Order: sequence, then C-alpha cells, then structure tokens
Amino acid sequence: MSTPEELLALVEQYLDELALTPELGGLEESVRYSLAGGGKRVRPVLCLATAEAAGAEPEAALPTAAALELVHNFSLVHDDLPALDDDRLRRGRASTWAEYGEAIGILAGDALLAEAFRLALTYPTPAVARELVQATLGMIGGQYLDITGEADDLASLHRLKTGCLFSASIACALWVADVPEREQAPWRAFADEVGLLFQIVDDILDEDGYVQERGVDGARALADETAERAQARLAEVPADTSVLSGIVAGLAARTS
Amino acid sequence: MSTPEELLALVEQYLDELALTPELGGLEESVRYSLAGGGKRVRPVLCLATAEAAGAEPEAALPTAAALELVHNFSLVHDDLPALDDDRLRRGRASTWAEYGEAIGILAGDALLAEAFRLALTYPTPAVARELVQATLGMIGGQYLDITGEADDLASLHRLKTGCLFSASIACALWVADVPEREQAPWRAFADEVGLLFQIVDDILDEDGYVQERGVDGARALADETAERAQARLAEVPADTSVLSGIVAGLAARTS
Repeated sequence: MSTPEELLALVEQYLDELALTPELGGLEESVRYSLAGGGKRVRPVLCLATAEAAGAEPEAALPTAAALELVHNFSLVHDDLPALDDDRLRRGRASTWAEYGEAIGILAGDALLAEAFRLALTYPTPAVARELVQATLGMIGGQYLDITGEADDLASLHRLKTGCLFSASIACALWVADVPEREQAPWRAFADEVGLLFQIVDDILDEDGYVQERGVDGARALADETAERAQARLAEVPADTSVLSGIVAGLAARTS
Repeated sequence: MSTPEELLALVEQYLDELALTPELGGLEESVRYSLAGGGKRVRPVLCLATAEAAGAEPEAALPTAAALELVHNFSLVHDDLPALDDDRLRRGRASTWAEYGEAIGILAGDALLAEAFRLALTYPTPAVARELVQATLGMIGGQYLDITGEADDLASLHRLKTGCLFSASIACALWVADVPEREQAPWRAFADEVGLLFQIVDDILDEDGYVQERGVDGARALADETAERAQARLAEVPADTSVLSGIVAGLAARTS
C-alpha cells in the first residue's frame, strides 16, 4: 500500500503535468495559478487511498482525484470574489481575482469546473462524473446557504459545503475500483463521517462554526467522537484500510 | 416528422417542468428566472430536430437539449455580470445579477452549468456529456478572447463563442440517436456551418462583428454563402433532413 506522502506526490505530479484544453488559451495561466496555491490536497489523496484500498492501482484514480481538486478550487476561486467573500488573500498569496482581475476570476472558476467534468468523463462509466456533479450541486447549494444565512443549522450547512465533496472523494474512487453499488454502503457511511470531521477541525482551527456554537472544548469533543465514528465505520469495510485509518487520524490531529 | 414549432413546445414544457436538484434550495428561483427569459431556444430545437432526423424520438433528446440551453444560459448569466459585460438588461427585463445581486448571479450561473452536466449524464453513454463539456470549454475560451481582445480574427472568436455549442447541439443528438462515430462526419460538417450562420446573422442584427469588418452588404453576402453551404452539407446527410433544412432557412432569414 502507498503512504499518504507517496499518494500526495502522485497528485502533485499529475496536476503539474495536466494538459488543459487548448481552447482555453490565455486563460490557462490563471487556472494554473489557482491550482498551484499549495493546498493540502486532502480530497485527492483520500480518493487515491480509497481506490487502492478497494483494489485498484492508485494511478487509475488520478483523473478523478484531480477533478475533485479542481472542483474544490473552482469553489474557492468563486467564493473569494468581491461579491461573495471578498478575499484578496488565499493561502498566503493573492487570490485569483486579486491577481488577475474579477472577470478572469469568474472565467477561471468556470474553466476549473468544466475541466473537472472533462477529467471525470475520461472513464468508460459515467458513474464517476455523476457522483462529481451531484457533489458540486450540493456544494453550490451550501454556498448559497452560507451567503444568505438561510441554513437551518450548522450541520446541514457543513454537509453541503464540505461533506458532499468529501463523500464524492471516496465514492468516485469506488467506481474507479469497480466496487459494485450493493457493496458501497459501508464505504459511504465512512465517507459521511470524514467530511464532518474535516469541517469540525477546520472550525476549531478558524475558531468559528462549531466553536462559536459549543466552545473550543465542545468542538474538540465533537471532533474526537466523529473521528472515533469514522474509524468504527472504516473497520466495517472488508478491505485493508490501514492507510485510510492513518489519514483519518491525521485529519483529527491536524493543526493547519 | 415534427415541425420546429412542435419541437419548441416540447422544449418549453420540459424546461417548465424540469425538477432541479433539491440541494440548490433557495437558489432555484434565480436559476428558473434566468431560464424563463424567453430565448429563441435555437440550440435545443436544433438538437431535437437532429435527433428525429437521425432516427430517434425527439423526446429522447430532451435532457441533452435542455442541457444545451442551460449551458447557453450559464454563459449569458456570467457574461452579464458587472466585471464582464456589465449588462443590466437581458431580453427586455433585468439580467439575473441585476434582479438578484451579483453573488446570486455568480452562483446561479455555476448552478446552471452543473445542472446541465447532470442532465447530460442521465444517458447510459458518457459521449453526450463529453460533447457538452468540450463545447463548454471552447465557449469559456471564446469569452476569454472576447474580454481580453486577444482573438486573432473574428472567425476564430465566433467559432469558440458560438460555434462550439451549436456544433454540440447536433453532435449530442447524434449520440442520443446512436449514430455510430464513423457516420457522424457529414452531420458535423453541417453543424460547423450552422453555428457560423447564426453568428453572422447575429452580427447583422446587432450591426457589429462581421458588419464592422465588411459592411452590411458584405456580411449579408457571407450569411447567404454560409446558408448555402449549410444546405449543401445537409444534402449530403443520408436522412430526411427537411425539417433541419427549414430551420437553416429560418436562421438565415431571421430578423430578431
């Protein structure tokens, strides 16, 4: 089994060498800029680790792993726009619109989303792209709830804004590894917990969301419970899930 | 064979009754607003007419016909934004961002694009969605050329901004009708001319583009030549293409 570091190296190399659609022309520079920002690549690494645990070569999952990262970056590029979160900084450097202007920021986000579907559509089965499109629609709905303040509660907001794409990171890998639908349930139960865990820890690091709702200790307790539940769900998956278990432990303990 | 009016009625009913992804929540209103603006639905009608000419029931092509219209509307909603064309009006009423604000305008465009892929992915073959995603990427590249003024010439700008999605309107229908790839060439040759024809007539009606390049008479002559070429290409297609021929004649003669 590959280590998370090896999987991360695969992802970085794939993204570096990714040939974009030639018709994008000069827009390519801003698309690459937004992708090269040095994120943690949590979703693609989770995707590759799941694919390998489910019996596929991790390389086979690279197009969908990259597609997940592109959808994630699409959401960041559009969320950063002045009309939404108005963030001029992202990961310690200028956000895409701050670097290239608002018009290019909008188009770069559009291109990231379309390129993501192109990558997900390189598989013979449309199931991979279907999984990705459902997650994207959930994420857009979550962003709508976030900017309008219409969310009923934090859990449903997080489920849409973060959970959907985390779940898809695992589900897309299952289709790549040819796991039949009837055998996917335990994996998907695990996936739901991972997305929630990531978001709770994010809130702890940013001191918002769950921390505002239940204090630092309350949020920490919730993260620990969620990590335990994720590990318990993972133990029910009939496969060698040791690498995934390590990733979950890392997500629970992360400090950035 | 169905008349263009019958096909248009099918499209309008399908769009009216289209169930959007529930997770979009309150964003649905702005998405429906942008779709209900009363466009000519040229692309979806062309798609249904092609499907029927190629031997399918037009109803079978409705999901992809709607997907094409959603991609077209995605491009309008984002192009109208203040950072791009800054249009407050679209088809005689407030553009989406002018009605709902810029943030919702950006998200509504994103949702239109993702819903389009969801619809294109309802087919068993991924070929329909692949065709749509390539056209979308070309269109985004065309929009980039348009706002930056980097286009080499009008023909390559139009090919990307308009031609790609017109070609996809015909190509998606071919996949729905199970036309084997080796038999698609004459259809695709026809498709290329139709997109160009639409754009030249658009320029004549708007008095820009080709009219600025070669005057009204020059642009009219180019439109007539292109319509003739489209009809000649269509005559090489081994099928009853009488309805498509009527649509081309209508596109050449349109006054709005």
